Amino acid sequence: MTLPATMRALLLNDDGYTARPSGSMLEAMEPYVTPGTIAVPTPKASQVLVKVALASINPSDVMFIKGMYGQPRAKGQPAGFEGVGEVVAAGEDAGAQKLVGKRVAFATGISNWGAWAEYAVAEAAACLPLIDGVKDADGAAMIVNPLTAIAMFDIVRQEGEKAFILTAAASQLCKLIMGIARDEGYRPIAIVRRDDQIPLLEKAGAAIVLNAEAPDFKQRLAEACKVEKPRILLDAVTGPLAATIFNAMPRRARWIVYGRLDQTETPIQEPGQLIFMHKKIEGFWLTEWMRSTDPQRRGAAVMEAQKRFADGRWSTDVTAIVPFADAMKRVPEELAKPNGKVFIAP
Amino acid sequence: MTLPATMRALLLNDDGYTARPSGSMLEAMEPYVTPGTIAVPTPKASQVLVKVALASINPSDVMFIKGMYGQPRAKGQPAGFEGVGEVVAAGEDAGAQKLVGKRVAFATGISNWGAWAEYAVAEAAACLPLIDGVKDADGAAMIVNPLTAIAMFDIVRQEGEKAFILTAAASQLCKLIMGIARDEGYRPIAIVRRDDQIPLLEKAGAAIVLNAEAPDFKQRLAEACKVEKPRILLDAVTGPLAATIFNAMPRRARWIVYGRLDQTETPIQEPGQLIFMHKKIEGFWLTEWMRSTDPQRRGAAVMEAQKRFADGRWSTDVTAIVPFADAMKRVPEELAKPNGKVFIAP
Repeated sequence: MTLPATMRALLLNDDGYTARPSGSMLEAMEPYVTPGTIAVPTPKASQVLVKVALASINPSDVMFIKGMYGQPRAKGQPAGFEGVGEVVAAGEDAGAQKLVGKRVAFATGISNWGAWAEYAVAEAAACLPLIDGVKDADGAAMIVNPLTAIAMFDIVRQEGEKAFILTAAASQLCKLIMGIARDEGYRPIAIVRRDDQIPLLEKAGAAIVLNAEAPDFKQRLAEACKVEKPRILLDAVTGPLAATIFNAMPRRARWIVYGRLDQTETPIQEPGQLIFMHKKIEGFWLTEWMRSTDPQRRGAAVMEAQKRFADGRWSTDVTAIVPFADAMKRVPEELAKPNGKVFIAP
Repeated sequence: MTLPATMRALLLNDDGYTARPSGSMLEAMEPYVTPGTIAVPTPKASQVLVKVALASINPSDVMFIKGMYGQPRAKGQPAGFEGVGEVVAAGEDAGAQKLVGKRVAFATGISNWGAWAEYAVAEAAACLPLIDGVKDADGAAMIVNPLTAIAMFDIVRQEGEKAFILTAAASQLCKLIMGIARDEGYRPIAIVRRDDQIPLLEKAGAAIVLNAEAPDFKQRLAEACKVEKPRILLDAVTGPLAATIFNAMPRRARWIVYGRLDQTETPIQEPGQLIFMHKKIEGFWLTEWMRSTDPQRRGAAVMEAQKRFADGRWSTDVTAIVPFADAMKRVPEELAKPNGKVFIAP
């Protein structure tokens, strides 16, 4: 296959981290990325070049382009952590070469050549050859959310209690978690902010759905904590809401922060609970999990994700597939819609 | 030995917990305890009766009588978690009987018959027969602080980094911790609030002493964190100061809360650090440690504490030994003095 010399991509405007953290909403693309034409990158020995079919937009992408994610930006490089496409070139390593011609889900985390482009570079080890039956939209969202879901559900499973709490529970990620939970007889307590999300979440596997905006929220939360005894709070929000939930949870509760949708101050309401109730506050980051988890468990998680998408137990709700030419204008408005994922089609 | 029928004691005014948490200072005794005369208690099978020579006043006693500690008060029972004295009667169990006539350090935590009395009941398992050379003042402060010091230093040791941070570092507890740390080549970073405490703490084993009230505190803290890379924060304070220290600490820092001297709100300044820097917030409670720790380790810790007091590596700084008759009036003012412990002599 003959490759072009140049490609279109959405390029990062800045290096490093922002000095002025802002909210998790993407108000516009222009402050953070600019469309441009750059040379098609050359994969290193351990890497492959993917012709991108669909690129995902995850909350972590938004945090990253805003300079609020756990790794520094590189000005002039394409953004985008995840996508699906065909491997059209590879470095000299056998592990990279054997992927040539295959359709893969890929993550670009450490390659600095992102997925919001016609071509992306990924480590061969961060590519999953897709089995038939996995749709492009599922493949493009096959790594970040599904592995996060499986890894965080492992925390719930290890803790032993059947009930656990999820904030921002209408997210794609939480729907994946609730799907596993329902299949294994666990009882997710889903926290949302709108009544119209309640039936969706009950369908997705929630045992209890609480609207944090309802006047009786605190009372219903207290009742749920008393009856269900949830030990794990999987929290994408932080701020006063998560603090209130953690405070209501029983002895040995663990508050696992994996996102920061609310940028207001996050208090520890009763630090004495850390002492006398043995509660803990910690974080979850997929990058850290990938680094620290036994490779066999990682491999099993990848297989589990593919099977769940292939047999229909999991599926990706698609809000929009935005053509590259419309991305600057349409991505922010599509992301503002609830209940689905947004992709870029380069 | 003939025992009297009644005894004097400082009796708790209230049951359970307070509805209105207040500061950690003891502004007066009257709201919380009242002197009275009650029947001398009878030890159960596994318990002993101790004629109290000296009773300790620990920060946990103050929190307890105010209804802010991790176990409920029992109205009309004597306060006081710890003391030293002679065993004058015992229950029928062999383990209790063999202590009769011995001088013991004792803890009353679960017996509900406190040490602020002429006689106290303790579980035989919570008594340490004292070796010669251990002074009464050391014996009366032999359990709560020394075991907490050894147990929390275990956390530092397991983490591996030589440097660690202590708040409220002029406390008796922190001096014990710094004594072990110095002997084992660790580097305590002591946080205090007054310059006159700096030489005392350097003498006690601190590698670096920082005054949190100094105008260049944040800058010096940042430098210390950069050079020393402390991973553990042993924190008796909470509130904004501890939050600032935790925020300045490097990757994988653990904030271990064991006290709550500052009752103002405790923020998590950057929850993203929990995610991307793998930081954690947790608590330490000696009662929990006693329950969850291997008995061999507990036994070794008790022996280590006795040896350290007997050979002079540890000693208890005494602010005052207050006679029982003066306790209501003098205890609050003596506790307000820095740098030493206050005892009641029944």
